[in-house]
Formats: sequence, structure tokens, C-alpha cells
Amino acid sequence: MPQTPQSPNKLAPDKLAADKPPDKLEIFAISGLPEVASGDPLAALLSQAMEQNGPKLQDGDVLVVAQKVVSKAEGRMVELSGVEPSPNALSLAEKLGKDARHLEVILRESKRIVRMNAGVVIVETHQGLVCANAGVDTSNVPEGWVSLLPADPDASARRLLEELGSATGKRLAVIISDTFGRPWREGLTNVAIGVAGFLPLLDYRGKQDRQGHSLEATVIATADELAAAAELVMGKTAGRPAALVRNFPWTPGPGKAADLIRPKEKDLFR
Amino acid sequence: MPQTPQSPNKLAPDKLAADKPPDKLEIFAISGLPEVASGDPLAALLSQAMEQNGPKLQDGDVLVVAQKVVSKAEGRMVELSGVEPSPNALSLAEKLGKDARHLEVILRESKRIVRMNAGVVIVETHQGLVCANAGVDTSNVPEGWVSLLPADPDASARRLLEELGSATGKRLAVIISDTFGRPWREGLTNVAIGVAGFLPLLDYRGKQDRQGHSLEATVIATADELAAAAELVMGKTAGRPAALVRNFPWTPGPGKAADLIRPKEKDLFR
Repeated sequence: MPQTPQSPNKLAPDKLAADKPPDKLEIFAISGLPEVASGDPLAALLSQAMEQNGPKLQDGDVLVVAQKVVSKAEGRMVELSGVEPSPNALSLAEKLGKDARHLEVILRESKRIVRMNAGVVIVETHQGLVCANAGVDTSNVPEGWVSLLPADPDASARRLLEELGSATGKRLAVIISDTFGRPWREGLTNVAIGVAGFLPLLDYRGKQDRQGHSLEATVIATADELAAAAELVMGKTAGRPAALVRNFPWTPGPGKAADLIRPKEKDLFR
Repeated sequence: MPQTPQSPNKLAPDKLAADKPPDKLEIFAISGLPEVASGDPLAALLSQAMEQNGPKLQDGDVLVVAQKVVSKAEGRMVELSGVEPSPNALSLAEKLGKDARHLEVILRESKRIVRMNAGVVIVETHQGLVCANAGVDTSNVPEGWVSLLPADPDASARRLLEELGSATGKRLAVIISDTFGRPWREGLTNVAIGVAGFLPLLDYRGKQDRQGHSLEATVIATADELAAAAELVMGKTAGRPAALVRNFPWTPGPGKAADLIRPKEKDLFR
């Protein structure tokens, strides 16, 4: 059974997205950010990019920011030449055909290995996320370096929300997204690894369908669908580390992406 | 490793979505369909709903249609009072606390059970999909009935594409979507169970990131992201069984949602 989020009824009785999906959504790419380095003020850079290239932030917008640019701004980068692989990393690296220093970094970011085979290592990260390579990767980072996930992506999202909210006065929702694989299905999709300002799960349980039956098990991972939708305008090679989703009636509240992680005891696949 | 789709380069050399994500996407709900019954001409009903309530179909639109309305039009509905549960269904139903006739229908739609626990049964369907209850469900169907997945959702998508294409003269892509859970994460998201007119996977392998490195393992499940994006305007209770995604540069080709199913021998979780 999915976990119940904080009661949306309590937080916004007249604004239930469940009852009022929008007639039209708009999704805008945010481009024109400079290459981001450790310590750079990401909220200000995003703000500036939107001021210059549009779209202008509006009340109700969902800002989706790619993990990579958040990690860069937070200095979550490791130069492989300074990494000393443990005996464990050396032995796993040989089995998997990977760089032992890269594997050492993956192991440091992991609570435990979930599955391993044919060059792929699926772990549970210290953040609780289950994903390939603990999210440690080499795309869009300088040669010889790897990027790590933000140490606390929900905190990263809250920081962006506070900084952009106070700079612009707009009521926003923020998602930090990353690109994950999934069992059984080919291809990767973007999911929400950090969330701020809204409830990431939309709970239809107890609501009625059009036949008047109660919907039983339907809790929609709205934040993951928003992250996936934003990926469609961001791409991987176009220098677009963020997007805005406009007109989605999110439910304000103290949501976090950690709510999207199924507790281990309820999970049939861990 | 993800599976390679048909080469997009060969099919559309100058229209690679990978290199040109759109600056802006629009997603429209399609509403005003009547209650659909077995044998109803779904393409005509969708066309009529769009004529009357907008949006008007344009070249390049992606039409996303919810599985439920496709199943209804195709008569993929079963009245439980006519179902005789097998001994196996009776025994599983007792373990899971489910209706034995409902479980009998689930078993008939399944190739095998992947995992079972605490009221949840995850199966591999005859279509090859791994999902809860073989997609057999009771939401938005008449009391005492259950709906099944379309027997061949790719064929359903192709039929809609052909009928709408010849009626309107527009160049379209079609997705049949359904709402699936996933391991490790709470909440459900929409995925593509049927696809026609385009390649559902976008293959970045061999392309370069902004640092000039080759992207290694990035194949994006574009069709699933489009299905997820469309769910944001469809909802579950608002009588909106379809949506249009406008301005996404899909790659034309003979894609099918079956391409999104990871072959068993490559899957670490079956």
C-alpha cells in the first residue's frame, strides 16, 4: 500500500488538484545559464537566466532543476585522481569492468548494494534512493571528475524555493530531478529526488470515480510526473538544466521527495 | 544495457529530438467524450470531442489515450458474475484477501506471477508488461465488472493513428497510457503500453555532452515521459480519457511500446 502524504484536505480544501486537473499545461525550457561551479549562487543564476531569456516566473509555477547543476553549485564533485580505491572497490571494479576509483566513490555514496550484474550496480544511497551507480556519473562534468547526488536533495530544493521566493515574491514549487532507470522497462525517465513547497503524492483514495465507486489504491506520484514532463524540454545535450511547468494545481504543503521513497518493509523488490 | 531502438538517424536525419528539445511544450486535456461502450468508434469520438471542445488537432501532435477507454471500446470488459474461479484462484484469493473471481481474471491475463505479498500481486501479462493485477481493475467501470488491458495495445495505437490520420490528414503520434506502480518508489505514474507512429526510446549513446564526452548509457524512455506528462491534465475522476502533447519533436518510425519492455534475460529484477 502506498504511503499517505500529509492530508491535502487539511492544507488546501478548495485547491485539490485531484478534482481539478488543468485544461492546459505549459512547460518551458530554461536556458542560458553559464557553466556552474562550486559555490555559485544557483537561485540567482536561474533567476537571471529567466529574466534574460524568459519565461518570467509567475505565481504557481513549478521550477524543475536538474540534479547535475545543483550538485555542481554545491561542490558535490570528486576528482578521480585523488581517490584511493579500497580492496572491495578494486575487486568489484574488476567484476563489473569499471574504473576502481569510480566504484570507490559509488560505494562511499551507498548504504548497500541492491543488485549487481553485467556492468550495472544498483544501490540504495545514503539518501535512501535506489538507483544505478548511486547517481555518481560522468556526463556533463569535466574529464577525470565525477558528480555525486546532492547530500540532501530536499534541503537543496527548499533552499532554492526560499531564495527564489524571497527574490521574486512568487509562490512556487521546486523539484530537483534526476534520470533513473527502472526494473522491467527499457530506457530512463526523470524522477523527483528533491521537492519543496508542495505535496509530491496526490491521494485519490476515498474519492469517487465517475461511476460513483470509491477509488481504492490510486496515489499518483505527481512530482515524478512533473519531473518526467520537464525532461522533455531539457534534454541531455542542449545546456538546459532547468524547466518551468506552468498551470499545474499542486497542493501546497511541507512535502519532500523522501515521501516518494517506499519504506523498505513495504517494498517487494528489495 | 538498454536495448537499441531502430536507428533514428536513418529515419529522420534532420529531426533528432535529442539535439533539439523544444523551448516550450503544451499539453491539452481532451474532454467531453460520452461514456464509451464496446464497439464504439473511439477515433471518431475523440475527433468529435476535439472538434467541439478543442484543441483542434495539428501536425506533430502526440495523442495520449487512457487504456480504460480503449479497453471499453474494444469490449475488453468482464462481468464477474459469469466468472468461475479455479481452485488456484480461490486459494490465492484467500491468501491475498481479494475476490476470487477478480483473481481468476487476473490469472487468465497473466503469463506468470512475479511477486505476491500483502494484498498485492505483480504479474507478467500476456502482453509482456510487468504490473499489479495484470492491469485488471474496477475503477471507472460499471459495478460488478472489471476491465482488462487491450489484447494488443500497440495494435490499438496503430488503429487510432490510422483512423485519425486518414480522417484529419494530420501527421500524429499515438500513445495508449496506463497507470503503473514501480518498485522502490511510492505512488503510481502513467507509462506507455501502446505506441504508434514514432520511436518510444531516444538514444543518446555516442552523442556528446557539453564537455565533448560521449554519453554512455543514456537512452530516454520518451514515450513514458509523454504518458506521465499527459496524466497531469487527465486526472482520474474528471472524465478526461485523453490528452494532446503539442510541440514535442518525436522521431517518426515504426516504434512500439513492446520496445519499452526489457527482455527478461537483461532484467535484474525478474
